[in-house]
Amino acid sequence: MMQELFHPDLIEYVGTAAGHTIGMVIPSIDPIVRELLKIPETYRSLAILTSRVGAAAQAIAIDDAAKSADVELLIFELPRDTEGYSGHGNLFVLGGPNVTDCRRCVELALKGIDERAERIYINEVGHMEMHYVARAGRILHQIFNTPLDRAFGFVCAGPAGIAMVAADTAMKAADVEIIWHGTPSYNLSHTNEVIIGITGDYGAVSTAVETAYEKASLLIEAYGSKPESILHFKK
Amino acid sequence: MMQELFHPDLIEYVGTAAGHTIGMVIPSIDPIVRELLKIPETYRSLAILTSRVGAAAQAIAIDDAAKSADVELLIFELPRDTEGYSGHGNLFVLGGPNVTDCRRCVELALKGIDERAERIYINEVGHMEMHYVARAGRILHQIFNTPLDRAFGFVCAGPAGIAMVAADTAMKAADVEIIWHGTPSYNLSHTNEVIIGITGDYGAVSTAVETAYEKASLLIEAYGSKPESILHFKK
Amino acid sequence: MMQELFHPDLIEYVGTAAGHTIGMVIPSIDPIVRELLKIPETYRSLAILTSRVGAAAQAIAIDDAAKSADVELLIFELPRDTEGYSGHGNLFVLGGPNVTDCRRCVELALKGIDERAERIYINEVGHMEMHYVARAGRILHQIFNTPLDRAFGFVCAGPAGIAMVAADTAMKAADVEIIWHGTPSYNLSHTNEVIIGITGDYGAVSTAVETAYEKASLLIEAYGSKPESILHFKK
Repeated sequence: MMQELFHPDLIEYVGTAAGHTIGMVIPSIDPIVRELLKIPETYRSLAILTSRVGAAAQAIAIDDAAKSADVELLIFELPRDTEGYSGHGNLFVLGGPNVTDCRRCVELALKGIDERAERIYINEVGHMEMHYVARAGRILHQIFNTPLDRAFGFVCAGPAGIAMVAADTAMKAADVEIIWHGTPSYNLSHTNEVIIGITGDYGAVSTAVETAYEKASLLIEAYGSKPESILHFKK
Repeated sequence: MMQELFHPDLIEYVGTAAGHTIGMVIPSIDPIVRELLKIPETYRSLAILTSRVGAAAQAIAIDDAAKSADVELLIFELPRDTEGYSGHGNLFVLGGPNVTDCRRCVELALKGIDERAERIYINEVGHMEMHYVARAGRILHQIFNTPLDRAFGFVCAGPAGIAMVAADTAMKAADVEIIWHGTPSYNLSHTNEVIIGITGDYGAVSTAVETAYEKASLLIEAYGSKPESILHFKK
Repeated sequence: MMQELFHPDLIEYVGTAAGHTIGMVIPSIDPIVRELLKIPETYRSLAILTSRVGAAAQAIAIDDAAKSADVELLIFELPRDTEGYSGHGNLFVLGGPNVTDCRRCVELALKGIDERAERIYINEVGHMEMHYVARAGRILHQIFNTPLDRAFGFVCAGPAGIAMVAADTAMKAADVEIIWHGTPSYNLSHTNEVIIGITGDYGAVSTAVETAYEKASLLIEAYGSKPESILHFKK
């Protein structure tokens, strides 16, 4: 879904991806903006990814992309968005010594987001984001406290109470550990959701996430339709 | 509106109610989730009610339901939701020694929510939630600081400035006392509303709330249509 | 767009303006509400302006209106609203010794808001608010730290990352200074946007804002349509 776009005034544009994500670079950041955002002088160039919908799909894709580029995560924010639903959008700013690595990171991340967004689900009563990955890199470590090179699982659903039941189910289904969590007023942005980040053996993590997915999905269906992947009902 | 639903994997589901509310129980909470949420060991079972729309309709219904069951309010959150409008959704988690009391509390609360939701109003420019109750129980005491067994009134409207005028009108209309209040950044979740919780003689409280309702309703009508109860335009 | 409305119970209503703004006065504030909101006794009357959409259009119009009336800004809040999009609504409460000045301030402000709202833009993927003004008064000084009588510029766009690129572009385009900024979790209400407030020579400020406007507009167009002024697609 990544689009190429050529415009003489748009040197920053790299591409777009699912969840109304746009990926950009700033080849050489303005010194006043740099200071304002407390970005160290080592980072001359920035990679910026920002979306209306999603949190972990983007975090996981960027974590993976950052393994192939000389970049560091400098800013991570989870605004309340999801375009009228009650989950997150996101802002990721990564710094690097040169624009080539930043652009490479954005390009790889956009591809990864298009794949990972398959597991962001929304319908008229609720939303879910469910992911697992075999090996967490530096970004997932930084954001969710995931041990490096270990499996990472992400269980998110709304309205908030549904995710509490899903989290309880996930923990009973497999031998995993919670390494991060959020409720509307804790670690989140007053979104109507609960999130757990988990680690453990890859098999256990995937079982826990899929069990949570089934539970949350059935509960949302109890008073609405089955939540659909955002890839199937909007770009 | 409560629906019965039988599914072998859905032992937690109890029913649904207005405001996209779902009621659930966890018969025996997972110990890791319990610890994470700082839930004391006395509470083996949980009652969970969570909605996309509404705050006080649910609080009042749960307050009433909790009078007939051995449960305690453990978690209360007001995420920003209302499905694209600018008010709250909610999360209530109650604990009890057994699942029977938790289920009973949820069942009673769902019925009460379907009644109380009559007084949640939304239209294209604003929203309101207006309630009064003769005797506050433990939950309303815990959340809104209402004296036990005294009348409780709830005045909420958005956009925020409209509720300021409604609150001023309410206080001039009857001899009541403000025991709780919220503005977008104080006690609330950046919602576009102001709320006051009041107490006093039942007659005074009801007069104050109805006067506020009339005022806020007229102000919203000044640039939109008359706000309708959510029971009349959506489930 | 201001409407006149006569209703015996609506002495507070003054008028409406773009962005679903309503302007009201309270001729004589209730003493309990006054105390609750920590409003000094000097202010007997209140001017209230509150909107579903917009922040700086209203702030600038009120700043201008306040130059012709004996009023002080007492409360300013930026709830997260924009009616399903991911920006702000607002609440402004000004106090004055008499209702005549408060009403005059509201009337002038509503007219100004209808003009300034031209530069609030929304479309299906993003939003922008872009303004500049030759001389900041007391309100803009109070809210955005703008030096009195100096030019003020406001650059706001979402999703958040787009505004980072726009801010970088603005700072490179003209010799201006940043005097206020917000990111989703800093100074803002978890909205999906970044904002900078700038000052400098009027020519430099206008160049910076227009350059930021062009950049953000092109980036939003990269995956949606050109953002339209709210005056052209809704009241």
